Amino acid sequence: MSVQTVSSTAVAHALTALRANRPLVHCLTNEVVQEITANVLLAAGASPAMVVAMEEAPVFTAISGALLINTGTPYPERVAVMKACAQAANDHGVPWVLDPVAAGATPWRTQAIRELLALKPTILRGNASEILALAGSGKGGKGVDSTDDSRTALSAAQRLAEETGTVVCVTGPVDYATDGKRTLSIAGGNVMTTLVVGTGCSLSSLCAAFAAVEKDPVNAAISACTLAKYAAGTAAKHAKGPGSFHDEYLDALYLVQPEALTVGDAA
Amino acid sequence: MSVQTVSSTAVAHALTALRANRPLVHCLTNEVVQEITANVLLAAGASPAMVVAMEEAPVFTAISGALLINTGTPYPERVAVMKACAQAANDHGVPWVLDPVAAGATPWRTQAIRELLALKPTILRGNASEILALAGSGKGGKGVDSTDDSRTALSAAQRLAEETGTVVCVTGPVDYATDGKRTLSIAGGNVMTTLVVGTGCSLSSLCAAFAAVEKDPVNAAISACTLAKYAAGTAAKHAKGPGSFHDEYLDALYLVQPEALTVGDAA
Amino acid sequence: MSVQTVSSTAVAHALTALRANRPLVHCLTNEVVQEITANVLLAAGASPAMVVAMEEAPVFTAISGALLINTGTPYPERVAVMKACAQAANDHGVPWVLDPVAAGATPWRTQAIRELLALKPTILRGNASEILALAGSGKGGKGVDSTDDSRTALSAAQRLAEETGTVVCVTGPVDYATDGKRTLSIAGGNVMTTLVVGTGCSLSSLCAAFAAVEKDPVNAAISACTLAKYAAGTAAKHAKGPGSFHDEYLDALYLVQPEALTVGDAA
Repeated sequence: MSVQTVSSTAVAHALTALRANRPLVHCLTNEVVQEITANVLLAAGASPAMVVAMEEAPVFTAISGALLINTGTPYPERVAVMKACAQAANDHGVPWVLDPVAAGATPWRTQAIRELLALKPTILRGNASEILALAGSGKGGKGVDSTDDSRTALSAAQRLAEETGTVVCVTGPVDYATDGKRTLSIAGGNVMTTLVVGTGCSLSSLCAAFAAVEKDPVNAAISACTLAKYAAGTAAKHAKGPGSFHDEYLDALYLVQPEALTVGDAA
Repeated sequence: MSVQTVSSTAVAHALTALRANRPLVHCLTNEVVQEITANVLLAAGASPAMVVAMEEAPVFTAISGALLINTGTPYPERVAVMKACAQAANDHGVPWVLDPVAAGATPWRTQAIRELLALKPTILRGNASEILALAGSGKGGKGVDSTDDSRTALSAAQRLAEETGTVVCVTGPVDYATDGKRTLSIAGGNVMTTLVVGTGCSLSSLCAAFAAVEKDPVNAAISACTLAKYAAGTAAKHAKGPGSFHDEYLDALYLVQPEALTVGDAA
Repeated sequence: MSVQTVSSTAVAHALTALRANRPLVHCLTNEVVQEITANVLLAAGASPAMVVAMEEAPVFTAISGALLINTGTPYPERVAVMKACAQAANDHGVPWVLDPVAAGATPWRTQAIRELLALKPTILRGNASEILALAGSGKGGKGVDSTDDSRTALSAAQRLAEETGTVVCVTGPVDYATDGKRTLSIAGGNVMTTLVVGTGCSLSSLCAAFAAVEKDPVNAAISACTLAKYAAGTAAKHAKGPGSFHDEYLDALYLVQPEALTVGDAA
């Protein structure tokens, strides 16, 4: 299947819409990355809210612009809330994103992620090892880190998208978003993102934010990837290590003008 | 009711006392802002401790200088611990602060916050939408973000303070602290604080730290607001975006000399 | 007992091995410091993963290079997971580190820590007040902060190491690692580390990372201390306060060349 490079105009349009609407993004994410996830959404122009109790979370999903579900540190009670919120999102037409952190790492986790995936997220965003694990191929990552290149997972991503009816976004040196038929890609970014926890997790939250304002989930996902790659590339020019990179990344997300959002062509 | 601008001398005195005493602040806060809350307290001169189990948290409250309760990510087990700690604080004469995050967002949350408020915190610190929701007026915020200006919530804050016997601190472009009769205010700060998660939550932790060393809770609350506005104004001069603002804010909290704590006059 | 200054050559060797192997470090840590712990491990060259559910955590320990257990915010369900993971580590020959945060602060916490210590961690890493509390002496710290100097806890650390068969690492102005017979030490660092939450907790995670690649736990612990002290000393030269120190610390962990790892002689 052919792969098209993302359109800068479409991404600029999506970012403009994001900032104009400031969508409320309900985040059910892991224990490690809650702060950076909130800060990435705020810097980009969205409004994050973490609401976690079964007593209120599904109600909150229904009034949100989008929902993020991230399985970095799942446990049974929180997985139950995730499922209830995914159902609420489906019932109320709220787009939602599943970040299947460390899919394949343990059987219990992989099963929990498969059950969430069966609820048909709007977008599934993962690294190559995670997407390969869910597509039934691959040998699994190293904990939460990918041991595969995103390019090797493209055909698995396309197949998984067709089978599940979910847009699949696989990220790495090149990012892809595909519905199984149409595939958009963006290259660039910087390897320093792998040394700052939460850059991948918060990219999934950006996918949710864009899905709140852009009806086509392939466009929404690749817009998020383009913004993140632009910010990473900009940050890397100013940072001397992962500590300063973290702050430069947030600053770049905040400062970028929509029309400047060009990164590299995909390989 | 008349509103007085805060006295720089009183605030300088309070900050000097804070740094001399380094009070232990027991924090029961939300999942998102624990790190920035601890770092804000450390930078300002207090000693934070997050202790969360029912088996030990009330015991720990009793030996702390002050208690913070923040409802950003409540769930039943944690709310039960919050209530037990609030009771322990009352029993042992430990001042405590309630930050009613997203009051009004869902019925369950609002009810939990009302039950905590019934335990009579020393200080209630919230944004305009939260204070309006608890005062029975207002249309609610957008998730955790305020959609109202602090100035529109002043009379509701004063009424709520009189009704509950709690000092109410409502913050935004202008911050107010009131016991219903006496109201102090401080203006200034910077809008960048709305783009960094936890600046409001950690301001509540500063209210607790000041309440540990300053007997008058109106003075304690407005001292915390003045310190936070000073740090935000200073940080904004050096930061290029929310990433660098976060660090500059912590540095400013640490570097400020008490006698330098003048911000602007309230509008 | 005599105390030897650490060998720079041994530490350089350990850091080279760490970066070459990029060990997977399973972290069961507290709610406050999860992000900085992950970022410290990534910056130093390890691969962190936080996996917390009873259903998968012990399975994950078994495939990890090392395990960290930190009792900053314990509660019964999480303590049960910690015990199961400690047992899994013992069963599979995975080295593990116990960070007994605020040992002595409450009876319930101290008892939970004693039960974990009875499972025989490879390394016990704490501040002076914590080590004194576990050795049955000392008057306890102030919440999570030490009120004692590491030098006053050395003999208690040596006795505790002999009694428990665990290498004890007590840190502060001077850091010591001892098995009760052999004691290595390193001085230096910077007091600014006490104003950034998680520097101690993440030092324990570095002990775990080094234990994954260095068989002798005394060498592993003192290598972690040396790296942390070097990074703190370097960061302090560039930082103006705790906000900028945090980022400089991460940058220094990332940038340091193994052969540059000399700090000061111990007092």
